[in-house]
This record gives sequence, C-alpha cells and structure tokens, in this order.
Amino acid sequence: MKIVIFIIDGLGDRPNEKGLTPLKEAKTPTMDKIAEEGICGLMNAIDIGIRPGSDTSHLAILGYDPYKVYTGRGPLEAFGLGMELKEGDVAFRCNFATVDENFKVVDRRAGRISEEEAKELEKEIDGLEIDGVKILFKSKGYRGALVLRGDVSDKVSDGDPHKEGEVPEVKALSEEGKKTAEVLNKLLKIVYEKLDKHPINIERAKRGLPKANIVLPRGGGKVPKVEKFYERYGMRGCCIAGTALIMGIGKMLGLDTYEINEKKMSVEERAKIIIDKIKKYDFTLVNVKLADEASHDGKYEEKKRIIEEIDKLLNIIFNNISKDELYFVLTSDHSSPIEVKDHSADPVPIVIWGKSVRRDDVKNFDEFSCAKGSLHWIKGEHLMRILLDLTNRNEKFGA
Amino acid sequence: MKIVIFIIDGLGDRPNEKGLTPLKEAKTPTMDKIAEEGICGLMNAIDIGIRPGSDTSHLAILGYDPYKVYTGRGPLEAFGLGMELKEGDVAFRCNFATVDENFKVVDRRAGRISEEEAKELEKEIDGLEIDGVKILFKSKGYRGALVLRGDVSDKVSDGDPHKEGEVPEVKALSEEGKKTAEVLNKLLKIVYEKLDKHPINIERAKRGLPKANIVLPRGGGKVPKVEKFYERYGMRGCCIAGTALIMGIGKMLGLDTYEINEKKMSVEERAKIIIDKIKKYDFTLVNVKLADEASHDGKYEEKKRIIEEIDKLLNIIFNNISKDELYFVLTSDHSSPIEVKDHSADPVPIVIWGKSVRRDDVKNFDEFSCAKGSLHWIKGEHLMRILLDLTNRNEKFGA
Repeated sequence: MKIVIFIIDGLGDRPNEKGLTPLKEAKTPTMDKIAEEGICGLMNAIDIGIRPGSDTSHLAILGYDPYKVYTGRGPLEAFGLGMELKEGDVAFRCNFATVDENFKVVDRRAGRISEEEAKELEKEIDGLEIDGVKILFKSKGYRGALVLRGDVSDKVSDGDPHKEGEVPEVKALSEEGKKTAEVLNKLLKIVYEKLDKHPINIERAKRGLPKANIVLPRGGGKVPKVEKFYERYGMRGCCIAGTALIMGIGKMLGLDTYEINEKKMSVEERAKIIIDKIKKYDFTLVNVKLADEASHDGKYEEKKRIIEEIDKLLNIIFNNISKDELYFVLTSDHSSPIEVKDHSADPVPIVIWGKSVRRDDVKNFDEFSCAKGSLHWIKGEHLMRILLDLTNRNEKFGA
Repeated sequence: MKIVIFIIDGLGDRPNEKGLTPLKEAKTPTMDKIAEEGICGLMNAIDIGIRPGSDTSHLAILGYDPYKVYTGRGPLEAFGLGMELKEGDVAFRCNFATVDENFKVVDRRAGRISEEEAKELEKEIDGLEIDGVKILFKSKGYRGALVLRGDVSDKVSDGDPHKEGEVPEVKALSEEGKKTAEVLNKLLKIVYEKLDKHPINIERAKRGLPKANIVLPRGGGKVPKVEKFYERYGMRGCCIAGTALIMGIGKMLGLDTYEINEKKMSVEERAKIIIDKIKKYDFTLVNVKLADEASHDGKYEEKKRIIEEIDKLLNIIFNNISKDELYFVLTSDHSSPIEVKDHSADPVPIVIWGKSVRRDDVKNFDEFSCAKGSLHWIKGEHLMRILLDLTNRNEKFGA
C-alpha cells in the first residue's frame, strides 16, 4: 500500500470581507472530488494556535517532533546541499560575500558569483582544521553551508551583519560556545586571507567584479539525532519539492529528493515527475510552493489562480496512478493569509483519500467545508500514525 | 488590535428532563448574534473531564498552566488584597476570630469586625519577625491574608478548626514544613497575647461584642514564579470582576483590576465600566459571577433570568465599542449544573468574534449549538494562542 502526502504550501487563508478565501473561491473540481470521496477535517501541523515555519510543519507532518529535531536553518541548509552530517556537528547557512580591506561587507552576495567559481573557492575552505575542529564547506553559487565538526557548540552569534557593514565578531552566547566562537573568528580571517588573493578573485577584480573573499555564517544549529524515515517507518520514501528548505528536510530524513521547478515546468512536466515517483516509491511527499509565495506577496487573485493550476496538476496525477493500493492525503503545512502576508496558526483543510477511509458528508475542499468533516481537528503528529494504521503498518500496543 | 474575553462564570449546564438548560431556554438575542457572526465551539478550561475551580480555570484560559502556578487559595487571597509578594513566600487566607481563654473558637468571624477596627489590629501582626521569618499581614474586615517570608514551606496544616472548636496546633505535613509549623504556632500565641488586651478589643468587650483576638490561617500555598501578563503577551491588560478570587488572579498576573458589584450596580452602570476599560486597554478580561451563584443555589429560573440580564449587558457593550480592531470572546470558565449545585467538567460554549475568523453555521449561543461549530472542542490553553495569532502577535516557530 502506497502513501502520498501532497502539501500545498501556505494554502489556508482567512476570509475576506465577502467571507471568501482564495481556496473557497477557486474552481477546484479535482480537490472537491477527493474531498467528497475521502474523510475531511482540519489540521494544525504543530498544535492549535502555533504558527509554524514550513520546515517545522513538514517535520511535524512527517511525524518528527520539531521541538526535538529542529535546531535552526543551518543543518537543513547543509542537508539540502547534500552534505553528510553527523550528530553533534554544528552547521551554518552561509553567503559568499565581498568585504573591503576593513572587513566591511560591500556586497552580501559577492556579485552573485557563479556556481563554477564558487566550487573552486570552496576547496580553499572545505577540509581546513582549526584547533582540532574540522571545517566542512559546500557551496551552491553564492549560497553555502559551513559545518564544524569536533568539540563544538551552536551557542554562538552569527558572523554576518545581515546587511552591508562590518563583519561582526562571532560571540559566545554562553560559556559552552566560547571555543566555537574563537574557531569561527579564526576561520573568517583565514578564509579572507586565502580567498582575497585567490586567482579566481584576482581574475574577477580584473573584470571589475566583486571578489568573493569572505563567507558569512548565520543560523547555526547543532545537528540532532534523527531516525531516518526508512528506519522509523519501513517505507522507501521520496520528497518532491521546489525549495532548498523542503529538500533539506527530505535529505535530513534520508528521503530521496527530486526537484520540480514550478515556475519553469509546465503542469504536465511536473505531473510526470510526481506520477513516476509515486509509481516507484512506497511513500511520496510532494510540496508545491507557489500558493505560499503569492500569500507572502499579498496577491489574492494570484493565489486563487495557482490553486486552480494545482487542481489541474492533481487531476493529471489522479488520472494516471493506480488507486487500488493508495492512500492519498491532500493538505497544507500552514495557513498563509493574504491579510497577514506570512504564516498563521489558522488550521488547514485536510482530506485523507483511500479505499477504506470512513467517508463523510464534506463535498468541497476548503477551510469551511472541511471543518465539518469526520476527521475533526487533528495535529500533524497524528497524520503518519493514521496512515500507518490505514495501510496496516503500525504496531499494536497491548494484547 | 484589541482582545476581550468575557466570561460568564458557571454558565454551562446539563439538560433538565425537557432537554433544556438555562442558557438554551433564555432569550439571548445578543449572544446569538455574536455566535452567528463568529466561530463557535466547546471549551474545557483545563482539560476534558477536569472539573475546575474558577481560579484554576481563569489561569488556564489566560494561558497559564494551573498545575504549575496554582498553589492554593492563600497566594490568590494575598494578591487580591494587593500585597506585594515574592516568589517563595508562603501565603494563607485568614479570618479574624474570637477565642476563649482555652483557645476555643467561639466566633469564626469575630462578630464581623469592621474594616477600620481590623486595620488597627493588623498593625500588631504585620511586620513581626519570628525565628528569622518575616510576617506580613493585611486585612479586609474579618478576612485577611497572612504571608511568611524567609526559609518557609507550605507543607503545613491549617491553623483553623473550620468550625467552632479548639484552634488546632499547626502540624508539618512533611519534614520540610517543620520550621514553618513552629513559627505559625508561636505566631498564633503572640497574636492572641497582643490582640486580646488591645484597646480595640477591650472596647469591643465593653460593648458586648466578640473580641477579634486571633487569626486563623488556612489554604497555605507557596507563591509561584509567574511571568506577568504584560511580559508574556506584550499587551496592557485589565481584569474586571466582582469577586476577590478573580481579582486576585488578575493582580497575580499584573493586570489592572476593576471591581463591578453586580448586585448593586445597574446593567447600564456595569456596561459603562466595561466599555471604558475596553477602550483603554489592549486586553480586557471580564468575569460576571451571578449565574454561578444561582447554580450553586440550584436556582434554574434565577440562572436563566441572570443570563438574560447579561445579554442586555452585552448588547449595550456591543453597541458602544469600536469593532474594527477587536476580537471578542464570549465563553465561561466552567459549567455549574443546577443538578450538581457546584462546578462540573461539562464543556462550555465558546464563540470567537472578529473580522477574520472563519464563520461557521452556528446561530445560537448554547451548549448544544456551539458543539457543532468549527472551533470544535478546545482547551483553555489554546485560547490565548489562537487570539495572539488572530491579532498577529505570535512568534513563528521555524522558517
């Protein structure tokens, strides 16, 4: 029995003055059909009244307690870039940037240095060792992740001014972070010395381009102990997404990851990838991101249009997969109301579709109709348990 | 954005033989309109099946875990009397009482001694020091609060027979309470010696009135560490109530407190105070008590009549406040069924009213209709989180 969780990022909304939301108003015959044939309800990924990020909500929906396994963006970025991390490593998100001779940032993205150039500079940093701490570094264009391995702590401040200006000294946020702060401060000096005179940067300077002569670490977090998805659930799983953040979650949990570019790929192209993976894997997580982006921009009509496009995507998927051995969940990670232009704690609609669910009377997939469903109001942590049970995979507790 | 939580104490009930409750039967056009325009549900202040006091339920509804911050009536009484308490103090509720020469209580309220006389006697007790323990005392007529500060414990029995009879020796309930019990026993002797011969009592005796020659401490509790409401939520808040208990909760949380006397003030007078405070504060908690009192007395018709009067109060309030920037919650702290004449764990109806809530189909505010609402069945701890989210005040967890 296969499981698919299809997450429309930032889908839920609050009603406008007409009492409508983009989802309520959008024409979504496929979603409505899934709702009609499934069991519906509301969900808060983490808990009632908790306003989640996309990272913490996905972890919760996949059955991982974000309060235990989420330690910041750094580890997710590093996992997303495919780095092999160990429990206890401390990982940071980084930018290649340009500093002048006074260590003042003049370009936070080093003129958006190319991936090829960044790969060359990466070699100067990756593999360094400072005071017994091993340094790992991986780039993707101007972005990257820096990992410290050894006797290290994440109780340190960012080495990033977060705008143009002087690179701040990294400070320990507690006694525990003292050594790590020292290592990072030494590292930033070494990086500058190595990169500023590097042939690539000499060449860039000649062409009038900003040198990529520093990296700015931020969002440090300790790599937690995380049981891999396969170990926990015994299913071969994959994660299909368009953002590094969600891919990072997938990689952290040991899911195979596949990228879809929603802006460049047609609905048919996206559908093809998703259908292929559903056929191949026991478990498929799909995240589509654009509805959330429209929400952050406050674009009601755009969000509605994207939802209608996703409905077409779902229609193709549903017409091209075997449904005998499938439980399909359609939901969202969090609401992103147009009026808020950010995530909110309003619950999201959810439907679980599959042959043995107890169908209810809900006929439309939206925030209002699903509130009347028989699934009532669940939390993210319940979802995998319900799905394991429906697919006869979970353990009995007791006799 | 303002928040109002309006609590009708003891509102919920169990159906009588006709299947009706006072709330179901009462004519409440304003409550029904609020329900129709809002999102409805059921609530248990603490948890399903937990039968709360008004103190513990109010704490829970305000987002404070009563299992952590509720340590007995003593601290609430002391806070309610406006005493400045420190974490670790041990506070008791007290009565001035009359004992004979054998330390036998002959009047548990010392003939309801006047506030002025009590204030004079208070000076004899407040400020004493016994074995390094500082004694604080404050009265309001025959009632008062006694606070021990220093190396003290709340693991002691009451120094109150709870009826006429001999004043019991205070006993340690565990090793930890030994010293505190000794201090209290010494204190009661000192108090008797000082008060029995006090001019006020000599004078009272001459007039044939019982002497207020002892205080009887009961309900001792250690003052917990409690984050103030403003620190926790960043809102300037007030609490409007008619009972010392709820005022004590408000003061403990650092809310400004205002008294309404429901028995003496007209609906219009009460409405005026509430409207003024809603205009002035970010957050207003209102508690109206009489429906609970009628429940304790087992008076069905009286409860119904009070509910209808509260509906008029709500009507005036709703017609005289700005509703653009307001989230208004109408609910109760606990059910108080007529058949029980006390609190019960039956959930209470709740409606959250405000421009961006997802309205549901509920058209009446009562125990049965609200059970069908989209808010389903929440706990008190969820309420503030939901309200912080609706007013865009809560933090995002993750990215």
